[in-house]
Amino acid sequence: MPHSWTRQHLLDLQSLSADELVVLLDTARHFKQVGERSIKKVPALRGKTIVNLFVEPSTRTRISFELAGLRLSADIINFSAESSSFKKGESLKDTALNLEALNADFIVIRHGASGAPHFLSRFLKAHVVNAGDGAHEHPTQGLLDAFTIREKKGRIEGLNVTILGDILYSRVARSNIWALQKLGANVTLCGPPSLVPKIFEEIGCRVVWNMEEALRDADVINLLRIQHERQRATMFPSIGEYAGLFGLNQSRRHLVKPDALIMHPGPINRGVEIDNTFADGAQSVILQQVTNGLAIRMAVLFLLGGGRREEIAAAV
Amino acid sequence: MPHSWTRQHLLDLQSLSADELVVLLDTARHFKQVGERSIKKVPALRGKTIVNLFVEPSTRTRISFELAGLRLSADIINFSAESSSFKKGESLKDTALNLEALNADFIVIRHGASGAPHFLSRFLKAHVVNAGDGAHEHPTQGLLDAFTIREKKGRIEGLNVTILGDILYSRVARSNIWALQKLGANVTLCGPPSLVPKIFEEIGCRVVWNMEEALRDADVINLLRIQHERQRATMFPSIGEYAGLFGLNQSRRHLVKPDALIMHPGPINRGVEIDNTFADGAQSVILQQVTNGLAIRMAVLFLLGGGRREEIAAAV
Amino acid sequence: MPHSWTRQHLLDLQSLSADELVVLLDTARHFKQVGERSIKKVPALRGKTIVNLFVEPSTRTRISFELAGLRLSADIINFSAESSSFKKGESLKDTALNLEALNADFIVIRHGASGAPHFLSRFLKAHVVNAGDGAHEHPTQGLLDAFTIREKKGRIEGLNVTILGDILYSRVARSNIWALQKLGANVTLCGPPSLVPKIFEEIGCRVVWNMEEALRDADVINLLRIQHERQRATMFPSIGEYAGLFGLNQSRRHLVKPDALIMHPGPINRGVEIDNTFADGAQSVILQQVTNGLAIRMAVLFLLGGGRREEIAAAV
Repeated sequence: MPHSWTRQHLLDLQSLSADELVVLLDTARHFKQVGERSIKKVPALRGKTIVNLFVEPSTRTRISFELAGLRLSADIINFSAESSSFKKGESLKDTALNLEALNADFIVIRHGASGAPHFLSRFLKAHVVNAGDGAHEHPTQGLLDAFTIREKKGRIEGLNVTILGDILYSRVARSNIWALQKLGANVTLCGPPSLVPKIFEEIGCRVVWNMEEALRDADVINLLRIQHERQRATMFPSIGEYAGLFGLNQSRRHLVKPDALIMHPGPINRGVEIDNTFADGAQSVILQQVTNGLAIRMAVLFLLGGGRREEIAAAV
Repeated sequence: MPHSWTRQHLLDLQSLSADELVVLLDTARHFKQVGERSIKKVPALRGKTIVNLFVEPSTRTRISFELAGLRLSADIINFSAESSSFKKGESLKDTALNLEALNADFIVIRHGASGAPHFLSRFLKAHVVNAGDGAHEHPTQGLLDAFTIREKKGRIEGLNVTILGDILYSRVARSNIWALQKLGANVTLCGPPSLVPKIFEEIGCRVVWNMEEALRDADVINLLRIQHERQRATMFPSIGEYAGLFGLNQSRRHLVKPDALIMHPGPINRGVEIDNTFADGAQSVILQQVTNGLAIRMAVLFLLGGGRREEIAAAV
Repeated sequence: MPHSWTRQHLLDLQSLSADELVVLLDTARHFKQVGERSIKKVPALRGKTIVNLFVEPSTRTRISFELAGLRLSADIINFSAESSSFKKGESLKDTALNLEALNADFIVIRHGASGAPHFLSRFLKAHVVNAGDGAHEHPTQGLLDAFTIREKKGRIEGLNVTILGDILYSRVARSNIWALQKLGANVTLCGPPSLVPKIFEEIGCRVVWNMEEALRDADVINLLRIQHERQRATMFPSIGEYAGLFGLNQSRRHLVKPDALIMHPGPINRGVEIDNTFADGAQSVILQQVTNGLAIRMAVLFLLGGGRREEIAAAV
């Protein structure tokens, strides 16, 4: 492989090259093995400090990053939106500078505002990792999805990948689109027209508004979570209507290729975007995505921290 | 000792044999020494992952398990009821499967529903530890109480143990009853008739409704916490009435054997179920119970994790 | 240096001698180097248990103590005001005794009541560290401020230090006053008369009520945070009025010595007690204070834990 990792931050997938994506996926493959061992811990980041700055609440992603850091032997500090400094009105910039002043090596940030990680990267010396920013990107989710597809299908190039749901407001969709297109997949987007506008065709995606077109020929079906606790917008149909029109259920079994992968970033809404037979069926790789997310996050932290390809064998 | 530990999970004490209980208590004795050292840490679970899944809030038990894991050198993730996944409506099964997909080795669960740990054990490969489920069981509490009695009295067999309070809704009472009866104690239950029904006689306990009978001849008096923040039920007398009828206070000093142990799972309500002279007196072992709880939890995690009796010396 | 550290607890700065303060500051200098290394971790407190008992919420101080403990390789338990035991009405004494019963070596306490750490120290064998008690003291803040002044100015003796703001209710001010006076500085206090009463002259401070006197000749200007989220008291002017009368802004640039240090315990209220040009200017040492706070807390934990001066080289 010609390319090695040189970036200071992981802010998005849009700006990464295909080579850089491959370095990340290859490195994660090594770290996945660490999770399968009896002693799931390597000393790569011993004595480094990682701050999880989760301004938008998240449990699953925060835990995955926390465990990735612990397994790399780093020291971890969790700083949440409920913390008193934010309540006292401190700005994001001041909060980040204060955390860096604790000699933080990494700041993993989730924030409701698109671009917050880029903003921090302009003045922090610490490595900034985007753990989800507004409707912009969720790069480690895009990477773990690409990793899972490559692991299960042996390749990404030439595959037909359908992403289903609220594309317009989904950072998961965006990070998937960038990664998969760079790695040579054909990406189809499907959902209600109000949430899947035609404009996505301008970045090379196919846009369809009915499930027959979306599912037929799909090698991978990636279902987004319907954020029904947030969806009170006029753009969104009722939950029941959504499940009927776009839910992956038995009535659509005949449209799904027998070897298509069923993916979902979780947590799933059983009976809404997916029914039990698909969620728990042989084609589902939903739980493997969770396992792979940990490997991806270990790889990201390792590479940003200056770990070199040739050191991986020693590190794992 | 003929018996060694073979179980995958610790779900309850009802299904354990006396031999298994003794293995746990003996192992905990070794781990208690670890807490008395200058360096209170052993490498037994290095590189293992423990998830504390506390769906019902708890500070004391969670901290005790967390510290037990840290002293065994495990990596710990705390996952609480307030976490966003639960708020997003994810089922307990899906949450547990997602946590296991992070290569969790242990899931320590506290849950308001009786049977939740058994439910998880049916589909998880990770070790499930019951940290309290509804009104069913709280096995590590039962074990630490048995440990404390044996440590202080030199034996359990033949002792008269009285458990006082809201027996009907108490998982602490249930776990105590199973452990103590298997180990040969005579168990008396006492409290208001509405909370201590006669039916407990069917599992071999003596049921009495007045303190004179309950205290006279008791070698051990285990006071349950009156959950006065929850007790608005019609079954329960007022706090003042309870304290008058069943509180352990100076007016009952003459009924208490001078060498009887006074126990309480904490936190205590001073002036309700116990007064200061008993809580802080020479017969009280309440704080030793806390110390012993840590040793019991280390032993449970060690044995479930495959630690063998002959490895204990090396492990501690 | 003639003096070595013999104290069991760090409860306040008022009772420390100048020699003891110097031992703390000198030790912190060694630990500051640890934070500048690639591997920011030393084994000094391996196998020790630190409980952060934060009854009054705090993020910044708690994180600083947590990271100090982690970098000393201790095991850390966070226990917050929101914990269920406090909600269940357990007394502070019982909570602390229960935490100590987990073989805690250190209890770091923040509490809204002045004297809470002293109270704990009367019955705990664990080392008690005051992380802020009511309006009484915040000793590690006073130490980190003294450390920063000495580091930047080369000395403390003979310097003119002005503390600005709500002195009456500030534990930061009190700990600064004690430390700085013992170390030979001249301390001036300034703010609205209702918040800076004349009585502070009795402990050796100069009290002034206008910025011209406060700033002229000041080698160090320490701005306290205006707790505007709390200040609804009749004693306090409006935020705008305060900023106009006592804010450090460009209209007062001519009063500030060009080499005066600008300090603030954070989080800062930009545009209230300080404007951006001062907060982010070359004279500001606000972020260095954060970095130094970590070194101070490592030094405090190290010395209380029995670390000897001659062991520092090995420890760091």
